[in-house]
Amino acid sequence: MTGTPTPDAPKPRRRGPGRPRQDEADDGPGTQERIRLAAREVFAERGYDKTSVRGIAKVAGVDPALVHHYFGTKDDLFAAAIEVSIEPALVVPAIIGEGPDGIGERLARYFLGVWENPVTRVPLLAVIRSALTHEAAAKVLRQLVLRRLLERVAADLDVPDPTFRAELAASHMVGIAILRYVVQVEPLASADPEKIVALVAPTLQRYLTEE
Amino acid sequence: MTGTPTPDAPKPRRRGPGRPRQDEADDGPGTQERIRLAAREVFAERGYDKTSVRGIAKVAGVDPALVHHYFGTKDDLFAAAIEVSIEPALVVPAIIGEGPDGIGERLARYFLGVWENPVTRVPLLAVIRSALTHEAAAKVLRQLVLRRLLERVAADLDVPDPTFRAELAASHMVGIAILRYVVQVEPLASADPEKIVALVAPTLQRYLTEE
Repeated sequence: MTGTPTPDAPKPRRRGPGRPRQDEADDGPGTQERIRLAAREVFAERGYDKTSVRGIAKVAGVDPALVHHYFGTKDDLFAAAIEVSIEPALVVPAIIGEGPDGIGERLARYFLGVWENPVTRVPLLAVIRSALTHEAAAKVLRQLVLRRLLERVAADLDVPDPTFRAELAASHMVGIAILRYVVQVEPLASADPEKIVALVAPTLQRYLTEE
Repeated sequence: MTGTPTPDAPKPRRRGPGRPRQDEADDGPGTQERIRLAAREVFAERGYDKTSVRGIAKVAGVDPALVHHYFGTKDDLFAAAIEVSIEPALVVPAIIGEGPDGIGERLARYFLGVWENPVTRVPLLAVIRSALTHEAAAKVLRQLVLRRLLERVAADLDVPDPTFRAELAASHMVGIAILRYVVQVEPLASADPEKIVALVAPTLQRYLTEE
């Protein structure tokens, strides 16, 4: 990941005489990735309500028909935007796969790191906001997060009701993100991340490893 | 509290010949309470954006000038609406004042009870939604919740950084509310409240009582 939210943001197009037609140039995995990143950028900036397929196509520098072709409806695009946004969260199963010793601390520290970094925080925040205000967005998040993240985490846990345990751990981290970064209550908002890690790590450790 | 969200919702006004002028009839603590409940109802239904002083005055059955007179701006009204909405949460200091033994369990059970009941859940949800999408609303919540709730809770705690501890406990409960009642991830959304209490109570107990 680079230092800007949309490293692949397209430059204005100029078609010289030797360049291929736009629909040929746009076909391929590079284009799909560009549309995905544009979707994340537009949903994060404008919110779920004010985002349109046309608006995303414009930012990606492609024809709206191509966006429809690759991604279908606006909700499908939202799913794609979430997938790009929660990519940092997909590192979590690897963290958990390292074994139970110190898992709570590794997880708390990694999670706060993702939220401390504006590049990863802004789209995550947009996802949470959209899910809280639009049932369609909540549904996409629910299905995606369940399938892609929580069930993978649960598969590595050796506790009763592993998905339930993973959700309890996730709920604590989501709540911290909201009070610290959105509502910004003090002293939580200005606290040293390590101070939070020290208190939260044993909680996550217990949820994810103890019977 | 009665079984309806706005027990004092006004009936259509009919002024008979012997009745006082409207501004006299509307003057007094009953009217202020009615405006407060109307504010809660309108903010919960329409969201922060689409709520106006005029709309609240209409639901309360009073002149908009009177609403301005008692409550000032829209943000002041939002503060009043939050105050009415978090009233159930103001029982929390009493729960904590009962002493450290079993405090985590009492708190977790009380909190889930408030969220299980739609009468108290709907306005709380509206407050969280507004705070997540509007900085003005977040500011009101931050100031109110800090002054009215977290600092009162912290005053009864015998731990280092009591406000920080209270915020960590609050963050966990807010996160559970969001994943269980808004995003509705399973199995958390359908879990027996007592199953949640059993796992979360030791966490709250530790944050609020252990060094």
